[in-house]
Formats: sequence, structure tokens, C-alpha cells
Amino acid sequence: MRRSRERPGTPAGIRVMERLDELAACTSELSALTRLYLTPEHSRAVAMVRGWMEEAGMSTEVDDAGSLVGHYPGRVPDAPVLLLGSHIDTVRNAGRYDGNLGVVAAIEAVAALHAVGQRLDFAVEVLAFGDEEGVRFPVTLTGSRSLAGTFETPNLDALDKAGISLRQALLDFGCNPDGVAHLGRDPAATLAYVEVHIEQGPVLEAEDLPVGVVTAINGASRFKVDVEGKAGHAGTVPMDLRLDAGAAAAEMILAVENVAASAGDLVATVGTCELRPGAVNVIPASAHFTIDIRSPDDGHRLDAIGALKARFEAIAERRGVTVTVARTYDEAAARCDPRLIGEFKATLGAMNLPRRLLSSGAGHDGLAMVSLCPIAMLFVRCRGGISHNPAEAVRTDDVSTAVEVLVGFLRRLPCPLSKLPA
Amino acid sequence: MRRSRERPGTPAGIRVMERLDELAACTSELSALTRLYLTPEHSRAVAMVRGWMEEAGMSTEVDDAGSLVGHYPGRVPDAPVLLLGSHIDTVRNAGRYDGNLGVVAAIEAVAALHAVGQRLDFAVEVLAFGDEEGVRFPVTLTGSRSLAGTFETPNLDALDKAGISLRQALLDFGCNPDGVAHLGRDPAATLAYVEVHIEQGPVLEAEDLPVGVVTAINGASRFKVDVEGKAGHAGTVPMDLRLDAGAAAAEMILAVENVAASAGDLVATVGTCELRPGAVNVIPASAHFTIDIRSPDDGHRLDAIGALKARFEAIAERRGVTVTVARTYDEAAARCDPRLIGEFKATLGAMNLPRRLLSSGAGHDGLAMVSLCPIAMLFVRCRGGISHNPAEAVRTDDVSTAVEVLVGFLRRLPCPLSKLPA
Repeated sequence: MRRSRERPGTPAGIRVMERLDELAACTSELSALTRLYLTPEHSRAVAMVRGWMEEAGMSTEVDDAGSLVGHYPGRVPDAPVLLLGSHIDTVRNAGRYDGNLGVVAAIEAVAALHAVGQRLDFAVEVLAFGDEEGVRFPVTLTGSRSLAGTFETPNLDALDKAGISLRQALLDFGCNPDGVAHLGRDPAATLAYVEVHIEQGPVLEAEDLPVGVVTAINGASRFKVDVEGKAGHAGTVPMDLRLDAGAAAAEMILAVENVAASAGDLVATVGTCELRPGAVNVIPASAHFTIDIRSPDDGHRLDAIGALKARFEAIAERRGVTVTVARTYDEAAARCDPRLIGEFKATLGAMNLPRRLLSSGAGHDGLAMVSLCPIAMLFVRCRGGISHNPAEAVRTDDVSTAVEVLVGFLRRLPCPLSKLPA
Repeated sequence: MRRSRERPGTPAGIRVMERLDELAACTSELSALTRLYLTPEHSRAVAMVRGWMEEAGMSTEVDDAGSLVGHYPGRVPDAPVLLLGSHIDTVRNAGRYDGNLGVVAAIEAVAALHAVGQRLDFAVEVLAFGDEEGVRFPVTLTGSRSLAGTFETPNLDALDKAGISLRQALLDFGCNPDGVAHLGRDPAATLAYVEVHIEQGPVLEAEDLPVGVVTAINGASRFKVDVEGKAGHAGTVPMDLRLDAGAAAAEMILAVENVAASAGDLVATVGTCELRPGAVNVIPASAHFTIDIRSPDDGHRLDAIGALKARFEAIAERRGVTVTVARTYDEAAARCDPRLIGEFKATLGAMNLPRRLLSSGAGHDGLAMVSLCPIAMLFVRCRGGISHNPAEAVRTDDVSTAVEVLVGFLRRLPCPLSKLPA
């Protein structure tokens, strides 16, 4: 893999890295970073981030969904607001960059404006959402869905493992649970939602690029596949009399890989597989595996699903086994706004940086925000594509670049967006 | 599948079936057949079978390994003894034919001689072994290994799940554990070991044949295969940057099937497969599967193992993953004696029955007996190839045929076997 030597970071980039190290101390565990929604460590993180927001010239509040909101006023009264941000909750035993980088980098961009007393036409708000990972409660994107007006009130009754409801946890955090349903922003008063995030994948590293512009948050479908054949004695049933569910599944798993590899913008994964009865000397009676399939283009994803089902049916018929494919999850792609993508590309061009476009394989708050306003994302290279792991790492020079790009983007952005070419 | 209409059974066949039903009542469970080695139900079965042996003109004894031995004298003093038999222990929740059929059919064959007062040149002994399945203790073939002189004395210390040693269980059964080491027969005094057994496979049924002559008890090897790739986010790692251990394993599993299908007399089975970490949205870091590979020809088996290892290495290299193949079990094939096979074929020919040769995919007492004397086996069609299951079933007319073939075989057999063409 080509890898450029790391350059010295800018003061802004260095400060972001230092703050992310500080922020990582807000954790429920001594030797690992775990910061779940509405916990004491979430509260400590809010207090820390709030201080940085205020230092950057923002007024702050915590909304009823537990999201910290920093407001940097604009020049034009009543102009729609540009939303920046990401989330400050983490998975268990997390890295320190997923989510947190986007919040701290956004604050740094506002700080750059504030440092020179610059106000944009529009106000800028930095959002630090509290529930993107969905680890504590069986709900997710609570903060962004609230702003988008798509939060479903029955979710307040969701329980964590200790039996505490989301409603009670919000109360304990100082929020009014009944207020969550009223957090929805007015689309007309919202310019866009823009997020900086680590790539969580290996593409930028493989091409030795500091940042990339996201085209879409991929749509995703998941399936449970059950293959039914016939058990038999591993020693006594000749090969041509077998109805081996395991061999059939193996052929289907290769078909999944093949269909995905043949389609440019698609990924598909078989992450689990079980053979039953599962004995060394018994021909598998049945095989059970899962598929996760994602694409920035919903049409491509649906086409691939159709192709896979046909391939599975053909394999099953030829082998005399049966196959059932059950969808367990389905989420449409969230397309980033072409005008915002264009502005990011223009910013990169002005900085003499390659303008790499890529899609996001992982989900983000933009999945919820897209129903409120145009969205855009800037990805930052991360080491080895590793995320959700303490080994998660970014380079200070890349973070410096990301902040610089974000500031340049903010300064270019017209209001309203309709001033941009479509 | 072609299936001939069942003909009426002979009186001998009908009696065998009735006795097998009676014998199935010797079980430790109310609604299932489970008869483990040296248990009270094993003791009840010995008493029942002993009565049938004595009725057929045999003197009986239980040897120090708990095997019931019935002796039918021959005409020539000191001529080598022909051993017939099988086992009367069962797996848990067993069928009533595996093992038991061979013992009861052998008694019926001797009864046919006894009924007309016929003595052969050689004595005939019917053996009812007590431990072929190896379910109660972590040892197997205890009865036949004792006669073959290959029983290993430390096995007396093997414990069952209740912590009872084989030594203690033998004592409780009325046997002298220290006598097991002295049960080895003199090869010069042993003519052959001949066993009737259900096929436990689908070949005879598929070809609509009542019986078949076994060429060999297949040799078998088992392997544990570990494939190591690299975990990754199912959404963010493009297909061409993946080191997917699961897809690599799928390709190897198909190679196992392909190598076995290309070799005429070989079967190979992947009965278990696990992907780790095993999450729907994580590219498998590693895959773990087992192989069971069997052939009547040890050379073919070893060739196939070599071919598979080469295929695995090529797949792993192309995909950038690593593979380790560890042998966990290895047993050479036990070839049936060509002269005895010839005599079975001649007997079938004289009865105008097709002379189908097939190998045994499952293990049998012959695996141990072959180190004492020439062995032969006659397989009986079983329904659906099902065994080790209450659904195990045989046809009364097929059992009638098997008894008739065995009697004809006994009457043809010269002593010594050297009188037969090689």
C-alpha cells in the first residue's frame, strides 16, 4: 500500500487531536472507551464539548433528546441555518474518532471563523448527537430523528438492559421526554446538514488520500437464508445420492461474492453460517446463513437481490434442495446533495487536493437528516479502515486538512443553495 | 426410485424380524431404544439372545469382554473356527437393526443347519459383541479387539459419564477385567469373520437390490480446517479489498465436494462450518470447518487428501488468506477377503440374485477382526439408507434372502480357505 509520510499538522488539527484525547476520558470503563447515551460519562462529555463550543463563540443548549446544540449567529436575520455535527456516543470498547471527530472538527471550523470575527450569511449550528450507535436502547438516531421530525414517540418506552426506559433516562439527564416530539426543525429554516467522519473503511488509505467526498450513505438489506437438504451418514451415502445443504450453501455464498464483485458500487457479505446437525460425520441436513448487501444506488441493490434470488433458486433446483430467503432489514440509501458535493469538490480543487468521491458503507445521522434537508459528508482517512475498535486511528495532518476543507466549504457556501448550479 | 413390491418372507426371515422386535424391548428408555455396553438392558439382551443360541444347538458363554459367544461344533476336530456375528449394543434412540440383525440372522443360519442335523467341517461361533458403538465409554470395538488381541489394557480405566470405569462395569457385569487381555484368538485356529449388517446407506435401495457383498470397510480420515482472513465492516470494505475467510472456506467446501465426486470410490463431507466473529455485518475474520473423507482404497484416500491440500493452498494464496489443515483421525481401510467375496458372489449367482459389490462407508467390528483373520460382510438393503434412528427399517423378504444367502455361503465354504482360488 502506498502511504505518504505524515506532514506536521496545523494548530487547528493538533488542537482537534488533543481534544479528542481529552474527550476519550469520558468513559464508563477504566481501560476502554465506552460512552453510551444519557449516561454520566455522556453528561461529562456534553460539559466538555459545551466549553469548547462557547470558546468558539457559540451559545449552547441541550435539547430534549440530549443533543448538545451550539449556535453561531449569521449575518442575515431569519436565513436558514447550516447544521454541522456528528455524535458523541460510542460503541463499547470504541475508538475515539468515530462521531467525536465530526463534532470537534466542526467546532474547530466555527472557531476559525470566530477567530477572525467572520460571520457568514447564515447561522451555523454544531450538533453533538447522543444516540447514533444505538447501543444502550433498542432504538437509534434518536437525536437526528428528533430534529428531522421522524422520532416515534413509542420509542420512549424502549428499555435498556437494566430495565430503564428511554423516557426515564431522558428525565434523569435533565430533558423533558414529552418535548422530543416537538424538536422537529422547519425544512425552510434549515440550509443543510454537513458531517465530517472517519471513513471506517480502507479506500482512502489504499489510494493515499487524506479526505474524500461522500456521494451517498448506502442503502442496505439483510437476509436470512435457509437451505434444506437431507441428512445422511458421511460414510455411506455416495456423492451422487446426496442432498448436501452445506455444499449448496457454499455455492450460494460464492454467488453472493460473485454478484457483488460484478457490480461496481455494491458490497455483499455473508457474516454467519451454520450447518445442522453439525457433526463431522453427518451430511448437513440444513444450512443457515445471513447476507448483508449495500449500495449507494437502491436500484442496483434491488437488482442484485433479484439476481441472487434467481441464482439461489437455480442452485437449489440443480441440487434437489430447497432455499428460503427472508428479508430481515431494509433501509434506502440517503443521497448526498449534488450541489453540496460540487462545493466540496470545488473546495478541494482550490486546495489542489484530489477530488475523490466515495459512498459510505456505514450508516450515519445523515440517514435521518436527509428527510429534513440536503446532506453532505466529508470522509477522513483512517488507519487500516479499522473502526469500532480501540485501534481506530487518524493522522493529524489529515484532520488538519479536513478542518481546512470544512472552513473553505463554509466560506464558499451560498444561501440559499438554489444559487448553486443543479 | 425403483422399488420392487415386497414378497412374503420365509419362516426364517419372519422369525428374525419377530426376534428383533422382542430384542428391542431391552432398552433403558420407555419410548426409545438405547442399549449401552454393560448395562442392565445389555444383560437382559444377552439372556434373550443366549436362549435363541441354545435353541439353535449352540453351547454358550459370556467372555470377559462381555461378548456372548455361541458355539456350534464342527465335524473335523481342531479345524479352525468360523466366526459369525455383530453387536447388540446400540446408539441412543437407535433403530433395532444396526448390529442386532447380524447376530439374530447368524443364529438363524446356524438354526437352519441344526434343524436338519447338519454339521460343517468347521465349528461355527456366533458372536454378540457388546461395544461396537462406543457410546458409553470413550473406547470402541472392545469385544472384537479383545478377540483380535489388540485391546489396550489402559482402556480399562476409561470412565463413562457417571465416573464408572470400564474395569468396574465389567466386574459388575460378572466379567474378569484382567481376563480381557487374554481373549486373543489364535489366527491359525480362526477360519474367518463374517458379518451380516444393514447397509446404513441408500445404494441397494436405489438399485432395488435385497443384498450386496462388501468389498472393504472404508478407511477414513478427518480434518479440522482453519482459514484466517481479515475482519472488516460489511458496509465499508470494497469487494476487491477484502480478505474474506468465509468466502474462501465456501470455495474450499466446493473443492471437497468436487474432488470426491471426481473419484469413483470416495466420499467426502463437510459436516460443520463456523464463521467468526459471526455477525451479519462483519466480514468473517476466520472460518473453521471439518472434513470426513473415506474410501475402500487407502491410496485413493491419500491421493484425494493431497489434491485437496493443494487446492486449498491455491485458493488461499489467490485470496490472500491462510489455511491450516490438521488431521484429527485416521483409520486404514479393512479389505474383505477376495476368496470370501467370491464365495458370496457364487452363492448369489446360484440363487439367481444380482451380485452387487459395494464398500462400507461406516465402521464395523471387521475393522478390528481383520487383524485376526480374513473378513467378509453381507449388506442388507435398509429403507431410505437411514440408520442410528428409530426410522431404521428393513424388509422381511430382504432379511429372508440374507439368511438364505448366509446359509448357502456356509454350506459352500471349504476349510481351509486355501482350497479356494486366490
